[in-house]
Amino acid sequence: MGNETDTLLDLMRPNPLLIVLSGPSGVGKDATLKRMKELGYPFHFVVTVTTRPKRPGEVEGVDYHFISMEEFQRMLESGELLEHANVYGNYYGVPKQDVREALARGEDVLLRIDVQGAATIKKVVPDGVFIFLAPPSMEELIRRLRRRKTESPERLERRIRIAREEMKALPNYDYVVINRDGRLDETVKQIAAIITAEKCRVHRRRIEL
Amino acid sequence: MGNETDTLLDLMRPNPLLIVLSGPSGVGKDATLKRMKELGYPFHFVVTVTTRPKRPGEVEGVDYHFISMEEFQRMLESGELLEHANVYGNYYGVPKQDVREALARGEDVLLRIDVQGAATIKKVVPDGVFIFLAPPSMEELIRRLRRRKTESPERLERRIRIAREEMKALPNYDYVVINRDGRLDETVKQIAAIITAEKCRVHRRRIEL
Repeated sequence: MGNETDTLLDLMRPNPLLIVLSGPSGVGKDATLKRMKELGYPFHFVVTVTTRPKRPGEVEGVDYHFISMEEFQRMLESGELLEHANVYGNYYGVPKQDVREALARGEDVLLRIDVQGAATIKKVVPDGVFIFLAPPSMEELIRRLRRRKTESPERLERRIRIAREEMKALPNYDYVVINRDGRLDETVKQIAAIITAEKCRVHRRRIEL
Repeated sequence: MGNETDTLLDLMRPNPLLIVLSGPSGVGKDATLKRMKELGYPFHFVVTVTTRPKRPGEVEGVDYHFISMEEFQRMLESGELLEHANVYGNYYGVPKQDVREALARGEDVLLRIDVQGAATIKKVVPDGVFIFLAPPSMEELIRRLRRRKTESPERLERRIRIAREEMKALPNYDYVVINRDGRLDETVKQIAAIITAEKCRVHRRRIEL
């Protein structure tokens, strides 16, 4: 066991995790994240940059960093984005430095991102924890998309079509959490359990026996 | 998505789990299991058969099935044991039928077993969830073994030597949970989180998209 005065607790402290929360448009990623923040979960929540217009109730620097197309271009060209995507004609990007600094401080990083973005992150950080938030059924997902009154019928139809496609990415994820209507706290508890469990995974520990 | 009236919830119900809780002698496997039973966790707790004498406070059919060497031989020869081991000269065995019936009823099965036994189970059921209960340090493990006043000094020394060997099996497990002194409920919570997480694992779901 080497030096027995070193405790196993110290020898086996896991590295901080990069947790990727994704799933189809309308499934409730934002609401889930908001609830985790409210409950005070000790994660570093990455704030994505986006060129899409702010929706009612969204707060700059909390929900997203809302930036201009010019600023997005600049960040992209100078390599400041870990990942970026074009979703429904709007651009989204993950600021690399934010993630890197949080991990360096030993904080677990939680990243809410669309399915396209998650696929890119998976290539760059295969050791991340990939969680797919799924609806209880496709009908329920469509109901949720309809409930959003912010969109034109054409955009809604397109969103539904894309959401169906996004569902097909599920088998590429590590975990699936079903986000049932009115059961947000159950969803959050399952995500928390996944993170607790991942910290107990033997392959994540620097074991020195 | 096939028939959309089938909900994802139904399509993705996970199969019942076989959870193996192991770890070195003295780490607190029995106490952990007892606490999980007290808290009413909905597992099928397998009762191991053993030829070792009953310790003070142990209850037949709850802690173990205490059987004679002759009965053990009979079960072994008729193929009724999923696994068996000789630990400190005593025989232990896991009744196959008990495990099989519980899984068939859709119940998650929790099996507390020594490190030797877990290695055998791993070969038979590689898809099981293998949890290693570890002490915070080797000193603490030795302290716990000494606290048991039921043994002669020679048996204690042997037990310590074997416990050191048993610690080396840790890298073969899926998860490690550190059982800290006076923190049994934390240990139990981590085990529960691991089971919740495993039920969310994509590869355990029968996904039919």
